[in-house]
Amino acid sequence: MDVNIFLFDGFETLDAFGPVEILGKIDDYTLKYYSINGGVIASAQGTQIITEKVEYTSKDGILVIPGGKGTRTLVNDSLFIQALKETIEISSYCLSICTGSALVAKTGLLDNKKATSNKKAFDWVVSINPNVNWVKMARWVVDGKYYTSSGVSAGMDMTLGFIKDRFSEQKAIDIAKHIEYIWNEDSRKDLFAI
Amino acid sequence: MDVNIFLFDGFETLDAFGPVEILGKIDDYTLKYYSINGGVIASAQGTQIITEKVEYTSKDGILVIPGGKGTRTLVNDSLFIQALKETIEISSYCLSICTGSALVAKTGLLDNKKATSNKKAFDWVVSINPNVNWVKMARWVVDGKYYTSSGVSAGMDMTLGFIKDRFSEQKAIDIAKHIEYIWNEDSRKDLFAI
Repeated sequence: MDVNIFLFDGFETLDAFGPVEILGKIDDYTLKYYSINGGVIASAQGTQIITEKVEYTSKDGILVIPGGKGTRTLVNDSLFIQALKETIEISSYCLSICTGSALVAKTGLLDNKKATSNKKAFDWVVSINPNVNWVKMARWVVDGKYYTSSGVSAGMDMTLGFIKDRFSEQKAIDIAKHIEYIWNEDSRKDLFAI
Repeated sequence: MDVNIFLFDGFETLDAFGPVEILGKIDDYTLKYYSINGGVIASAQGTQIITEKVEYTSKDGILVIPGGKGTRTLVNDSLFIQALKETIEISSYCLSICTGSALVAKTGLLDNKKATSNKKAFDWVVSINPNVNWVKMARWVVDGKYYTSSGVSAGMDMTLGFIKDRFSEQKAIDIAKHIEYIWNEDSRKDLFAI
């Protein structure tokens, strides 16, 4: 199964690479890096990543969408949002981190579904699409094929939750142990929501 | 102040990008990515990063050295170890994550200093240089300008500890909150050392 990481300029580095670290521990997953036009993408922390064009994304994969300051303009980029919508539609799962859920919400595909996002940017994210059932008090939220996490580091907890759902709790615990990560495994417990 | 991240093929993605996420929150820090020959470096998770030649690294910076499967051969690469030694010597601080400390230890610069490393690879790391005072039960260890962390995720806790030491505990707490990270702030508490 392919893990397709959809990057854009100004994405938050850990939003993408926390989940990448965990998903990379599954032997059957192949990690691939995409962007709207392919080529070099720079994270908000100046990391330059080589990507392929998102139109080449495989079907039935796991789509990963980080957040970050780049989302603030991208929500108004209709070409990007259309490409994201089409990529989500061909994907088996859609995992967004932090304000990545603002981009997913903008496609309309989250309408009437439960989702969460970064707590400092929460009001802005809600304003992008109030038709989503936004859940403030959550480390991450699952609704069908959609996984949305709170800010940055919450993406790691969500991804371990995804591994638990796909495989088993033991598999998630084993991966957390392997990377010496203390998993905050209760998705409803959110220390940053207040 | 420059943060100089020294990458190599097969580095563990989160080893580098956990600390990057945190150090990138300091306005006065500029993040730069290096490798022995410059050009494209691939992480163990297939991320392709563009780097500059390490010989161009600025003096008096903060050097960050990840671990990962790439370290297993690099400890025997005398050109790499020599370049690393010279880069550490011109740096004000040296932060290694996971088995990155095996590389630092190989330079001899950690001799008679305290250090730690990944817990699953601990015996191998110790075998690289038994003249280091290896500390098994530690999330991270500080000795002079040398910060060494346990496996992968421990690098984030160490980097917040580094921020605490350079600035203040409140600054570290603020950054952790900003990225919704639950900081394991006791460097002596290590759940993975057994």
